[in-house]
Amino acid sequence: MFGADRASLGLGMELLGTGDGSAVVRMAVRPDMVNGHGIAHGGYVFLLADTAFACASNSRGPVNVAAGADITFIAPVREGEELVASAAERVSYGRSGIYDVTVRRGDEVVAEFRGRSREVGQLG
Amino acid sequence: MFGADRASLGLGMELLGTGDGSAVVRMAVRPDMVNGHGIAHGGYVFLLADTAFACASNSRGPVNVAAGADITFIAPVREGEELVASAAERVSYGRSGIYDVTVRRGDEVVAEFRGRSREVGQLG
Amino acid sequence: MFGADRASLGLGMELLGTGDGSAVVRMAVRPDMVNGHGIAHGGYVFLLADTAFACASNSRGPVNVAAGADITFIAPVREGEELVASAAERVSYGRSGIYDVTVRRGDEVVAEFRGRSREVGQLG
Amino acid sequence: MFGADRASLGLGMELLGTGDGSAVVRMAVRPDMVNGHGIAHGGYVFLLADTAFACASNSRGPVNVAAGADITFIAPVREGEELVASAAERVSYGRSGIYDVTVRRGDEVVAEFRGRSREVGQLG
Repeated sequence: MFGADRASLGLGMELLGTGDGSAVVRMAVRPDMVNGHGIAHGGYVFLLADTAFACASNSRGPVNVAAGADITFIAPVREGEELVASAAERVSYGRSGIYDVTVRRGDEVVAEFRGRSREVGQLG
Repeated sequence: MFGADRASLGLGMELLGTGDGSAVVRMAVRPDMVNGHGIAHGGYVFLLADTAFACASNSRGPVNVAAGADITFIAPVREGEELVASAAERVSYGRSGIYDVTVRRGDEVVAEFRGRSREVGQLG
Repeated sequence: MFGADRASLGLGMELLGTGDGSAVVRMAVRPDMVNGHGIAHGGYVFLLADTAFACASNSRGPVNVAAGADITFIAPVREGEELVASAAERVSYGRSGIYDVTVRRGDEVVAEFRGRSREVGQLG
Repeated sequence: MFGADRASLGLGMELLGTGDGSAVVRMAVRPDMVNGHGIAHGGYVFLLADTAFACASNSRGPVNVAAGADITFIAPVREGEELVASAAERVSYGRSGIYDVTVRRGDEVVAEFRGRSREVGQLG
């Protein structure tokens, strides 16, 4: 799935690992991700977390889509910094699931994300 | 603020209007925003909503940053479609605020976003 | 539905009005709702908002249940104060819906709640 | 703190343990917690989770209050059942913190809660 994801590839994301409800994705903050405050646009941090969430929730077979998500921005991120998002399934029930994603810069947490997934029959 | 926001300008966003706690921002879904499912990456819908939120929360003077946000994805969005995000302040208290952003394709709602803002002294 | 809701009635809640995706519910803060900080336990403010959400989401016919909710606590509430929760549908799609509930003490907003509903065939 | 919390004691909650950013609280679902659908009012599940969150976030010294929370309801709960909420700090930064609370009936997860805390100088 990740290999066909132009959006994530175009942002320079790299899938470091995935399997059994989890995924780890890396992204460097590029100049075009910086906002008017001189820091990375929170939306790009969300994009990274959301990609890790998508990889984790689709690591087992059936197609899952994001029904929603909540993100808390913890520390500002700047151009040139490298971020790593680690996603793990928290719980699944029926066709729904909850995944937690922590985004770090080195050892420091810069964002916490919780995604709500929904299994779908097919997409298109 | 929007004029200095390379991230938003680079995505082709256009600020249609802002003032008194509200903002309206437009974005067309480009080929590089499409994900592995053939639909727009939810992260780009978030980015659009988050930009409208930032414009609305900074429309009155003091610098506000996003402390967090929740998004619900309502309908899939495809390449070439045009989205409009309308942000409005719901409530402000102390140095905090809540803003609601609705993202539409024509008359249809495709996402609902609620952002939590925090006033800061300065950034950098 | 409200009339059969022992939980809400037992807390002294009063349904002031409902219809077409909206509802207004009132509750006075009792001594047994006060927590260790001398202010009303946030959970009771949630209960009030959740009840208004339930009445609004079931005001049109099919049975809806709460899939989840987010609440922001804006101001502390004390014993003896009277709270009014106003719920309104924000959007509905498929079997899902989003409802916004504002809890006020007089004219002052004390909490903002956003509920996610899901239509179900039957309960029991 | 828990000992002075009339709201939690009045609901029959029992603090099973607390320390170092975590807490475990138990509650049995009483007849007065049942709603119009014949199942426990989600607000009481929230109350239990919120109490575990409060105990965990105040387990280390400074006074913390709930700034907000998100809950996902996973399975319905019925009268007479016993619930256990386990809270743990996920991250803290400045005067803010995020705590995750899982509510279980035996081994089964019935709700996932994420609370946002804020340290305050004093209350009253």
